[in-house]
Amino acid sequence: MRVAEFPQITSEILMRLRARAPRVHCITNAVAQAFTANVLLAAGAVPSMTLSPDEIGAFVARADALLVNLGTFDEERRDAVAAALEVAGEARTPWVLDPVFIDRSEQRAEYARALAAQKPGAIRLNAAEFAALAGSEAEGAALTRYALDTLAVVALTGTVDRITDGAQHAIIENGHPLMAKVTAMGCAASALNAAFLAVESDPFLASAAALLVFGVAGSIAGERATGPGSFATTIIDVLYALDGTALSEKARVI
Amino acid sequence: MRVAEFPQITSEILMRLRARAPRVHCITNAVAQAFTANVLLAAGAVPSMTLSPDEIGAFVARADALLVNLGTFDEERRDAVAAALEVAGEARTPWVLDPVFIDRSEQRAEYARALAAQKPGAIRLNAAEFAALAGSEAEGAALTRYALDTLAVVALTGTVDRITDGAQHAIIENGHPLMAKVTAMGCAASALNAAFLAVESDPFLASAAALLVFGVAGSIAGERATGPGSFATTIIDVLYALDGTALSEKARVI
Amino acid sequence: MRVAEFPQITSEILMRLRARAPRVHCITNAVAQAFTANVLLAAGAVPSMTLSPDEIGAFVARADALLVNLGTFDEERRDAVAAALEVAGEARTPWVLDPVFIDRSEQRAEYARALAAQKPGAIRLNAAEFAALAGSEAEGAALTRYALDTLAVVALTGTVDRITDGAQHAIIENGHPLMAKVTAMGCAASALNAAFLAVESDPFLASAAALLVFGVAGSIAGERATGPGSFATTIIDVLYALDGTALSEKARVI
Repeated sequence: MRVAEFPQITSEILMRLRARAPRVHCITNAVAQAFTANVLLAAGAVPSMTLSPDEIGAFVARADALLVNLGTFDEERRDAVAAALEVAGEARTPWVLDPVFIDRSEQRAEYARALAAQKPGAIRLNAAEFAALAGSEAEGAALTRYALDTLAVVALTGTVDRITDGAQHAIIENGHPLMAKVTAMGCAASALNAAFLAVESDPFLASAAALLVFGVAGSIAGERATGPGSFATTIIDVLYALDGTALSEKARVI
Repeated sequence: MRVAEFPQITSEILMRLRARAPRVHCITNAVAQAFTANVLLAAGAVPSMTLSPDEIGAFVARADALLVNLGTFDEERRDAVAAALEVAGEARTPWVLDPVFIDRSEQRAEYARALAAQKPGAIRLNAAEFAALAGSEAEGAALTRYALDTLAVVALTGTVDRITDGAQHAIIENGHPLMAKVTAMGCAASALNAAFLAVESDPFLASAAALLVFGVAGSIAGERATGPGSFATTIIDVLYALDGTALSEKARVI
Repeated sequence: MRVAEFPQITSEILMRLRARAPRVHCITNAVAQAFTANVLLAAGAVPSMTLSPDEIGAFVARADALLVNLGTFDEERRDAVAAALEVAGEARTPWVLDPVFIDRSEQRAEYARALAAQKPGAIRLNAAEFAALAGSEAEGAALTRYALDTLAVVALTGTVDRITDGAQHAIIENGHPLMAKVTAMGCAASALNAAFLAVESDPFLASAAALLVFGVAGSIAGERATGPGSFATTIIDVLYALDGTALSEKARVI
C-alpha cells in the first residue's frame, strides 16, 4: 500500500461495506451497546448484540464478523465469548478483540491474553491496554513484535493511531480530542474494525481503513460540535454521509 | 373508524396519554433501554425497566401497561417475562410483544410463538419477524389470519406500517428511511404501543394511533435531521411537541 | 459557607475535578450507564462501570469515589455492591447511594435502608424515594433528622434541590422542567455527586456543589434546547464548558 492511495482504497472498502451491509455480532458492554449499534448502522453494517449462551451461536453463524469487547467481564460474557469463538472459528468468521480496561484488573488482562492467542483478525486497544496485554510499552518495535507473535493486526488508538500486522504499518493523525470525552468511542471503533474485516480480506487494510474512516469522521465532527454531547451525535451524522472526497481531503496518514 | 377522522382520534389519545402519564414497565434489551425510556418520557408516559425476577411483579402490579421485547434472550429475561406476565394476566394489564430478531434464531422464534399465545394486546414486528412467527409472508390476508388466531393486534412496521385486529385495518405511510439507521426504533415503537394501550381500550385504535404518532414524528424529524445521529435526537424533540395540527397535516393513512 | 460565596467555591471544586480527573466507579442500571458515563467525562471525571463480582474489587480499589445506584436490583448487582462496599470501606473511598424507585418495591426499599446504614457520603434521591427510605415526608426537619441519623448528606432533587448534612443547609433553585423528561438525569446527578466527593473532603460542600453544577448546566441547556432529545445532548456540552462566570451568573442558591 502506498500512503497516497490509502484514502482512495479506504473509500472503496467503505462503499463495499455499504453495498454488502455485513452483519456484525457484538459482544460488548452495556455502556457501549447503543452507541456501537448506531455507529455500525451509520457506516452501513447491521449489528446484533445478544449475549445469551443459548443462542449466540445461531447469531454468530449468520454474522459476517464478530466483536469481542471485554468492557463487562462476567461469567455470562465469558460463556458467550467461548460459544461465539467456537462458531466463528469453524466458519472462519473474522473477529476483533477489544481488551477494554485490562490495565485495571489483572484477571481481565489474563483473560485477554488467552483470547489474543485465539487468532483475532485485529486487536484494537489503547496504550495502557497494550502495555497490560503485551507487557511492554506501546511503541513501534513492540507493536510489530506483538503483531508477529499473535498473527493479529494491532490497531492502537490514541492521539495518533498506529496499525500494523508486523509487516505493513500505518500511522493516522486524524481524530479529535473530544473523542476521549465521549464514552464508547474506542468500543465503537473496534466494532467498525470488525465490520471492515467482513468486507476486506487483508486484515491490515481493513483495520487501517476502519480507523481512518472513524478518525476522519471524528475530525469533521470536532469542527462542527460544541462539546462532547453534540460531538457524539455529529460523528454519527458524519459517518453516514462520509465519502471519498471527504476522506481524501481530511486524511492524515503517514 | 373512518380514515379521515383518524389523526383527530390519535391526537385525542395522545392528549389522554399526556394527561394520565401511564406507567409502562419495559422488559427490553440493554441496547434499547435508554432510547425507549426517552421516547416514553417524551410522549408523556413513565417508564420503568427492572428485570429482577424478585421485584418485577411489584413493578408490573403498579404499571398500566407492559412491554415484552425479546431483544436480549437469556434466562434472566425469560424468568422476568414469566413473572411479569403472571401479574399482568391477573391484573388484566395490557401488554405488547416485540419478537425482535426471531428470524435469526429458531429457539427465539419458538419462545415468541409461546408468548404470542398468551394474549398480548398487540404484537409489533417487522416483515422478517412476522414470517418467522407466523410461518407465512407478511401480506394482508396472513396478517388478518394471524390477528384472528392470536386475538392480538398485529402491528407490522416497515416502509409502510400495517395494523389489523383481523376486522379493522389501517395502513400508515409515514416514517422516514433514517428510522432504519438508528438502533432501537422498532423497540421504542413497541413501547409507545404499550403506552397507548394503557389509555385506549380498543387495542386496534391504540396500536394504530401509536404507530401514527411515531411515524409522523419520524417524518418531521427526517425533514430536520442531517443524519441518523441528529435524527435520534430530533425525533424525541418532535414527539414531545407533537400536537393535533401536526398530526392532521402530516398523517398519511389509507 | 456563605451563600454569596457558594458559586465561587463550586467553581473551585469543579476546577479541581478537571485537574485531578478522579476515577468514579459506578454500579448503576443499564438504562443510565451511557448517559452517566458521558456526564462524568464532560465534567472531567473518568468513569468505570463493571459489575462482575470477580473484579469489581480491583476497580473500586483504583477508584476515587463510588456510586451505588439501585436502578437495576438483581442478585448480580447486590453481590457487586457488597464486594464494592467492602473495598470502599477499607480504603475509605467516599460513595453515594442513589435509591432509585424504592417507592415502587418494598424489597428494594429495605435493601436501600440497609445500605443507608453503611455510611454513604451522600444519599441523592427524590421526594418519593425519601419518603420510602425515611418513612416521613421530604420536608426540612425530616431531611435534617435523617442526615443526622445516617451521618450522610441528604441531597434531595426536584423542582428545588435541598442539601443538608444536618448542620449545614442549601437550597438550589436551578435546573429545568425538561430534566424530568430525560431518563437517567437523577442517576447522572448522583454520579456527579460521587465525583465531587472525590475532590472535596466536606461532603456537604461536595454534594451541594455537584447539584449546583448540574442544576446550572440544566438551566442553560433548557434555554438552548428544543425538547428533551436536544436537552440531553446540550446539557453535556454545557457541563463540559461550564465555568465560574456562568456559575456566578446563573446560580440561584438560598
